[in-house]
Amino acid sequence: MITIAVDAMGGDHAPRPEVEGSVLAAHEYGLRVLLVGQPNVIRAELANISRPTGAIEVAPASEVIAMEDHPAQAFRRKKDSSVHVGTRLVKEGLADAFVSAGNTGAVMTAAKIIMGTLPSVDRVALAAPFPNAKGSVSVLLDVGANVDSKPEHLLQFAVMGEIYYRLAFGSRRPRVGLLSIGEEEIKGNELTRAVYDRLRDLPVQFVGNVEGNDLFSGKVDVIVCDGFVGNIALKICEGLAMEIVKLLRKTYKGSLASQLGYLLSRGALKGIKRTMDYSEYGGAPLLGVRGVCVITHGKSNANAIKNAIRVASGLARARVNERIEQELSLTHARA
Amino acid sequence: MITIAVDAMGGDHAPRPEVEGSVLAAHEYGLRVLLVGQPNVIRAELANISRPTGAIEVAPASEVIAMEDHPAQAFRRKKDSSVHVGTRLVKEGLADAFVSAGNTGAVMTAAKIIMGTLPSVDRVALAAPFPNAKGSVSVLLDVGANVDSKPEHLLQFAVMGEIYYRLAFGSRRPRVGLLSIGEEEIKGNELTRAVYDRLRDLPVQFVGNVEGNDLFSGKVDVIVCDGFVGNIALKICEGLAMEIVKLLRKTYKGSLASQLGYLLSRGALKGIKRTMDYSEYGGAPLLGVRGVCVITHGKSNANAIKNAIRVASGLARARVNERIEQELSLTHARA
Repeated sequence: MITIAVDAMGGDHAPRPEVEGSVLAAHEYGLRVLLVGQPNVIRAELANISRPTGAIEVAPASEVIAMEDHPAQAFRRKKDSSVHVGTRLVKEGLADAFVSAGNTGAVMTAAKIIMGTLPSVDRVALAAPFPNAKGSVSVLLDVGANVDSKPEHLLQFAVMGEIYYRLAFGSRRPRVGLLSIGEEEIKGNELTRAVYDRLRDLPVQFVGNVEGNDLFSGKVDVIVCDGFVGNIALKICEGLAMEIVKLLRKTYKGSLASQLGYLLSRGALKGIKRTMDYSEYGGAPLLGVRGVCVITHGKSNANAIKNAIRVASGLARARVNERIEQELSLTHARA
Repeated sequence: MITIAVDAMGGDHAPRPEVEGSVLAAHEYGLRVLLVGQPNVIRAELANISRPTGAIEVAPASEVIAMEDHPAQAFRRKKDSSVHVGTRLVKEGLADAFVSAGNTGAVMTAAKIIMGTLPSVDRVALAAPFPNAKGSVSVLLDVGANVDSKPEHLLQFAVMGEIYYRLAFGSRRPRVGLLSIGEEEIKGNELTRAVYDRLRDLPVQFVGNVEGNDLFSGKVDVIVCDGFVGNIALKICEGLAMEIVKLLRKTYKGSLASQLGYLLSRGALKGIKRTMDYSEYGGAPLLGVRGVCVITHGKSNANAIKNAIRVASGLARARVNERIEQELSLTHARA
């Protein structure tokens, strides 16, 4: 039976959505879930749940890393945090995957240091799935702030992203694009020009350069970029989506007709916020670590946690890391 | 009297918005406008205008660079294009500024090669203004795809962007931020870490690193970045704004209440599209060229053209380039 360690303390609304999502996932997908955190807090939350919670166990961790904690400092100081214990459970083979809605930087640090990196991988990559205009999902990686990437890193991101896309979204032959500033091969910076031909030689369906607007066009499934660019891209999307929703609200207040329009279309607005929310797509996996680690949005609700557990267990079940190792060993893409 | 050369042939709907916008601007701001392009086409359009068009003259250019033309090729082959003639008019002192809604790459190439670069500037920068959550404007530069910037380039961008912001938006002390992946000084890539301290030494109000979401937060007025990052950022914004508007339309079709809501709020939706449209803010100036060159969106209407002419004439009148030269000569920020 697949076992998933879930950080019960990490999210903005912890532990409620974490506990509820875990119970839902355990039932629906036949999984064993270890809720990692302060046992009294978790048990109090479990007591509110009416369903049977047989497949749920508590893995004690006395400390909590807060969203506003400095990732590296928190990792050094709070050694019995739910993030430490969760990643250690995977490292020790007691869990197949770790899911957290907590401090992204701290989870990434713990996963890299405690779980370790796969032998063929130089740098792990955080892959963010989001909806596109074609009604499917596109994945951008790295969004985890691995800066000053070398060409080999981008090659590894392409291979890992393509395998993740196949496993998580059931596509047989995902299209992989390189984020740049023009479609032609010669368009781009030193890094993209150096990696273009080598991406063509990979055993993935590389379709060439894509531009910023292609994040949403659905032209490609997997978009590869350096983590500085990817992190800025992700935050622009979050910031702009939020501003547009605010602007909508404000604009609707203009006329009586607009106000009525707003009242009648509140449901539609909520739908849009949901569609823009990447936690609906199962959270962002940290690819390249030994084990499976999925990070979801701090604001994740129970459904988002459930989705993240589903994706994490799917990746574990399909042995994502054996596939990554196998494919990377064929490509010799080491820095 | 300030003279502005306007590319009458470049935009998606040329020459109508170009001609109308020019006539409006000439009257409202007391300017002389040279409409650059095919005389018969321009005269036919002028004949439709009821107002007096005394301050409008036609500057003949026989060729037209299309949006889909390859910028560098078009620049080499169509030597009598409106873009060539318009930039030459500035070079020869016959116009104070050139405004175009045409092929951005071709205009940038022509401006750089024909007008030339200021003595203290290593690289020109395209500065994109857009609305922020505080109801004012933020400016991102470079968005013109100057890749692999050196620290000195970013320093020059900061100085030029700050001067442009002061002149175009009437701010006495604009706040300047460096686009990065975290607020702390140590967060970022090789480039941002190398330039951070040097930005602090500039005679501008440097407020530190800002993140992707700060493009819209209104936390800073001027945001400096490498052109690879800036170009991707700009295209993400355009792509995402377009997708959200599409998504809104689609979502509204869901229920009868939503449909009614949509009908009642169409005005609001149009307002949002307008607010997101950077041509409302006077177009994007190409900073660092000898002369003034402002590029507006290909879809610019007469009002956007008028706004671009207003900004261009304001920059020319305020002698933006003398100020840039003066300030850069104090900073010794050469690559």
